[in-house]
Amino acid sequence: MTRFALTVEYDGRPFMGWQRQAHGPSVQQAIEDAAATITGEAVTCHAAGRTDAGVHALGMRAHVEIAKPIEPFRLMEALNARLRPAPVAVLACEIVADDWHARFSCLGRAYEYRIANRRAPLTFEKGLAWQVPQVLDADAMDDAAQVLVGRHDFTTFRSAHCQSASPVKTLARLDVARDGDRVTVRAAARSFLHHQVRSMVGCLAMVGMGRWTRDDLADALAATDRQRLGLNAPPDGLFFVEAVY
Amino acid sequence: MTRFALTVEYDGRPFMGWQRQAHGPSVQQAIEDAAATITGEAVTCHAAGRTDAGVHALGMRAHVEIAKPIEPFRLMEALNARLRPAPVAVLACEIVADDWHARFSCLGRAYEYRIANRRAPLTFEKGLAWQVPQVLDADAMDDAAQVLVGRHDFTTFRSAHCQSASPVKTLARLDVARDGDRVTVRAAARSFLHHQVRSMVGCLAMVGMGRWTRDDLADALAATDRQRLGLNAPPDGLFFVEAVY
Repeated sequence: MTRFALTVEYDGRPFMGWQRQAHGPSVQQAIEDAAATITGEAVTCHAAGRTDAGVHALGMRAHVEIAKPIEPFRLMEALNARLRPAPVAVLACEIVADDWHARFSCLGRAYEYRIANRRAPLTFEKGLAWQVPQVLDADAMDDAAQVLVGRHDFTTFRSAHCQSASPVKTLARLDVARDGDRVTVRAAARSFLHHQVRSMVGCLAMVGMGRWTRDDLADALAATDRQRLGLNAPPDGLFFVEAVY
Repeated sequence: MTRFALTVEYDGRPFMGWQRQAHGPSVQQAIEDAAATITGEAVTCHAAGRTDAGVHALGMRAHVEIAKPIEPFRLMEALNARLRPAPVAVLACEIVADDWHARFSCLGRAYEYRIANRRAPLTFEKGLAWQVPQVLDADAMDDAAQVLVGRHDFTTFRSAHCQSASPVKTLARLDVARDGDRVTVRAAARSFLHHQVRSMVGCLAMVGMGRWTRDDLADALAATDRQRLGLNAPPDGLFFVEAVY
């Protein structure tokens, strides 16, 4: 068996999420089905992060194990040919050691969250950004974001369905920057809780709207209580950007 | 009658182009129908440029004349509400003088052409960029592009259906720049011939692939012969960016 690491880009709009589901299309199934067609083998694809329905990836990392001899470049081209017309593309493919695991070997994950801070309805970015009509104070958001950086119990920012053993995570980076009517939140950590990025972004938007102060955010974090969450941002604006090994 | 200038963004993928057509949806019809619903009047919408099928706009300028008293902000909001779910959004709306004309008062037009220079199929940008798998030399393209800048007979770069009185145009700017796997061509002129930007981009891509030199491009221009066109780029990557008054 040869293990291949894949770098995958996908538009999450038509998918129920990364993970294979009985009731709808998933990115995992699209890749596994394409790999099975190429190899004649039942292939399992593991990813660095299992994104939710409607969440996107610019650089998801994943791996597959294949018995049939095939060059990485050929595998990538064959996967891309069979993935069409699904909006999933393999950007890179390389052979890795048998103990390299897309999820368990991953040392860091980076997400980007895109807010379209405008009144006009979205055209190109429908489903690819969160439209917030109220003017956001991105500097205030960036300032408040620093409250969340570091090692904390992120229970307030954790979905009820989160399967993580512990709510304690170390947030390495949380930045907010404006470029025209685009407000981008960038988050990096070794790992995240389920819905953590969307929950943090939702609360930062509360700050940006002037409905929360930096102290309100700090209080919500300290409360370690999901009921204290201000707002959970929709999946639309969330992009898995990078996995570090 | 009050004349309103509109700034319009649209995703050209579902449209037959700007101009109203008997056989399919157009951006002009979408706006005119929305305006008619709001005002109860038959409204005609004139644009700075009549983009082709599949061509997009980030900042098209247009105007409408309306008898019913209405504030510009209210008109914009009402248009956006009625344009949904079509991917057309009015970004700005202001009252202008009765002799202001979106097309005839326009002193300059700027386009952007997006090339996705990568092997992997497009996901987010399907229909929003021209995918070119061969590695393009963007510096060579930028260098060759300068051959086209200035006042020339652009017959080689003109569609057979072009209705312009003269093939002589003054190209103010034609730049090519790479950012990662994105190669962007920016063009500005008082006005363009039909298919001129796409034809120039197609020939610049020939240069980028190493199939044409800068001299080949100069020869094609000097020939003033449509048969000498190297390549016409698809509509997908073309965006109307700005109209200057």
